[in-house]
Amino acid sequence: MLKDLGIRARRAAVALAQTTDTQRAGALLAMAQRLMADMEMVLAANRADLDQAMDDGIPTAMMDRLALNPARVADMARGLEEAAALPDPLGEIQWQTTRPNGLRIRRVSVPLGVVAVIFEARPNVTADAAGLCLRAGNACILRGGKEAIRSNLAVAAALRKALKEQDLPEDGVQLVDDTSRESADALMRLEGYVDVLIPRGGAGLIRRAVEYATVPVLETGEGVCHIYVDKEADIQMAADIIHNAKTSRCSVCNACECMLIHQDIAAQALPVIAKKLLASGVTIKGDALSQAILPGIAPAGEADWGREYLDLTIASRVVRDAEEALAHIARYGTGHSEAIITGNRATASLFLSRVDAAAVYHNASTRFTDGGEFGFGAEIGISTQKLHARGPVGVKALTSYKYIIEGTGQTR
Amino acid sequence: MLKDLGIRARRAAVALAQTTDTQRAGALLAMAQRLMADMEMVLAANRADLDQAMDDGIPTAMMDRLALNPARVADMARGLEEAAALPDPLGEIQWQTTRPNGLRIRRVSVPLGVVAVIFEARPNVTADAAGLCLRAGNACILRGGKEAIRSNLAVAAALRKALKEQDLPEDGVQLVDDTSRESADALMRLEGYVDVLIPRGGAGLIRRAVEYATVPVLETGEGVCHIYVDKEADIQMAADIIHNAKTSRCSVCNACECMLIHQDIAAQALPVIAKKLLASGVTIKGDALSQAILPGIAPAGEADWGREYLDLTIASRVVRDAEEALAHIARYGTGHSEAIITGNRATASLFLSRVDAAAVYHNASTRFTDGGEFGFGAEIGISTQKLHARGPVGVKALTSYKYIIEGTGQTR
Repeated sequence: MLKDLGIRARRAAVALAQTTDTQRAGALLAMAQRLMADMEMVLAANRADLDQAMDDGIPTAMMDRLALNPARVADMARGLEEAAALPDPLGEIQWQTTRPNGLRIRRVSVPLGVVAVIFEARPNVTADAAGLCLRAGNACILRGGKEAIRSNLAVAAALRKALKEQDLPEDGVQLVDDTSRESADALMRLEGYVDVLIPRGGAGLIRRAVEYATVPVLETGEGVCHIYVDKEADIQMAADIIHNAKTSRCSVCNACECMLIHQDIAAQALPVIAKKLLASGVTIKGDALSQAILPGIAPAGEADWGREYLDLTIASRVVRDAEEALAHIARYGTGHSEAIITGNRATASLFLSRVDAAAVYHNASTRFTDGGEFGFGAEIGISTQKLHARGPVGVKALTSYKYIIEGTGQTR
Repeated sequence: MLKDLGIRARRAAVALAQTTDTQRAGALLAMAQRLMADMEMVLAANRADLDQAMDDGIPTAMMDRLALNPARVADMARGLEEAAALPDPLGEIQWQTTRPNGLRIRRVSVPLGVVAVIFEARPNVTADAAGLCLRAGNACILRGGKEAIRSNLAVAAALRKALKEQDLPEDGVQLVDDTSRESADALMRLEGYVDVLIPRGGAGLIRRAVEYATVPVLETGEGVCHIYVDKEADIQMAADIIHNAKTSRCSVCNACECMLIHQDIAAQALPVIAKKLLASGVTIKGDALSQAILPGIAPAGEADWGREYLDLTIASRVVRDAEEALAHIARYGTGHSEAIITGNRATASLFLSRVDAAAVYHNASTRFTDGGEFGFGAEIGISTQKLHARGPVGVKALTSYKYIIEGTGQTR
């Protein structure tokens, strides 16, 4: 069954690889229009999902991720329009040379082929992922969570209809209607049909993909982001940045989970930082030295280091120096985003060079690790692995390349 | 046990990531010197491997891959010197921007970290792989075949000694001394310590890595390369190129396994092509139409399409047109290297655009798919997957990147 989807996806991918930029951008605009035109159908399907979710006693947070309304559908359409407006990622000559034997070699960006995305309860991912995949000439196979199946099917139907109207293969977007664990597992092993699998979801899903998949996986991992406040930091800047990185949206992977404060500045800085955090309802858990400066905060233990709270909690640790901060980050970080606040350029350089993470910041919030904030347009996730794509995975990361070699009869 | 190697490799990788270009290039030169100085020790170890191999009744072809002599050791040293001479792959600013909010973002190349290489009987891989990994600031964990264990240990000892003499961590190069199947399996799952695994060997090893590994794998697959002779081909050029692609080295992955001949030119072209091939002892296996033109050749059946002979055999098929050639390649090719011979630029463009392979050629031999021939320097293999690196995997493919973001207190 899933293999049939694979065959159709491969066929669609071959056709999509030959489309022009105008055709692909046009398809995305048509998808946006169709989604708006079919809004009632999408919302009705979503109401059925919500009714079912209510009956199943699904947690409120998930209900919120699942729920659509006219504004959210319009956001999906806008996302497609924005992806349409991105520059063509295909056909870019990334490198070229003429060899001494006269061979002319060009390295040109091409689609990956078939991209599979496994995601959970948010139906907007159906449109977002399909849009990014198609922008780069890829066919996609989407497999969402069972809670959102009716919504996802309705969204996918609208997108497919638009493709057909544009004389493009509707199998460029396919949704797996089987939401069993088995269908996700089978997708992870659909070799020869899936060029890359992107799991978008919790740690369990990503773990399963890493363990079980035989197709290449683009891993979007958790973010345990630290902010190190150096002894030469501007304390007010540190307080503002930590407050922003913790509270502006605490459930996302680029939020700050732990602050590391240089011992020489801790007594002055921690009260200023803490005051701002506490005013926004943040719980601070500190090591002994932090507790000594901030009496009344909860203790932080070994389990707090390297922990992704995903809520309004932050850990605090006083460190001897930048070296100890670097060692803490090397041990407990997840390679996502790490920041230093300092007025000393040499210390900043040391930190930026030494920290091994997708994004390293000097005097800015970790919350900027985001495709939109980097200027890439929408993203399909933040990669914490080092192969292929690191950091925000935008439309360019959904391409591969090939070498085109032109000769005049050369032999070796 | 293997985890200890992982811990040491990670520690070495952290140090290597901070080295200068001069230090890394110098380390490779020192490794080359040390290898030449320790030649006797390496050759003695190799003799012991060869004696054991003789006792074990190992096939002659493998004996040849296993055997070292002064010239082969000198080749290994020269490979290290050539890698030293490559431009620094690290610290390259691949992209940069200043955002409207003033954030300055740079994308800078960095080492992958720890690269694991599993290989088979050829001891030169120990030096070649270590050299490329170190050039890009990576630590490596090498696990060679049991036939070559004494040779590999001797080579690795020389390389480590050189690192130590250069005040660099000798654990930048580690060889797994346990050559059991279990050690390869364990390396495939050494998560958190291995950033990428490169299996270099036969289909069985690569299959195992794809199936079993949980660390990211850079797949170097088989090469079933086709040459399509269009109706507008220069027949002599076609004969020369096919002869070169089949006979210049038939056991490698960029050799040609199958020729596809346009029906309109087959009667004239096939005899010319065949004459040249047969004179070099090539066995031609043809479909019915090829057999009609070349009486006496062996028949080619379904099992011959998509087959990697790795010897002096070539399959031949007469096709209706370029479309049928493209369909054959899409079905039976492995995405390695494919070529068209034609004087018609439009047909060439169609072929170059439509074929989905790492390297696509117009009027040149598939044998050029090679790091050295592309001007990349040495390579660690040819990737047939689409993620991260496609085609020759040179020193640049052994890097990742990170985003360095500098601000003045920006929050989101």
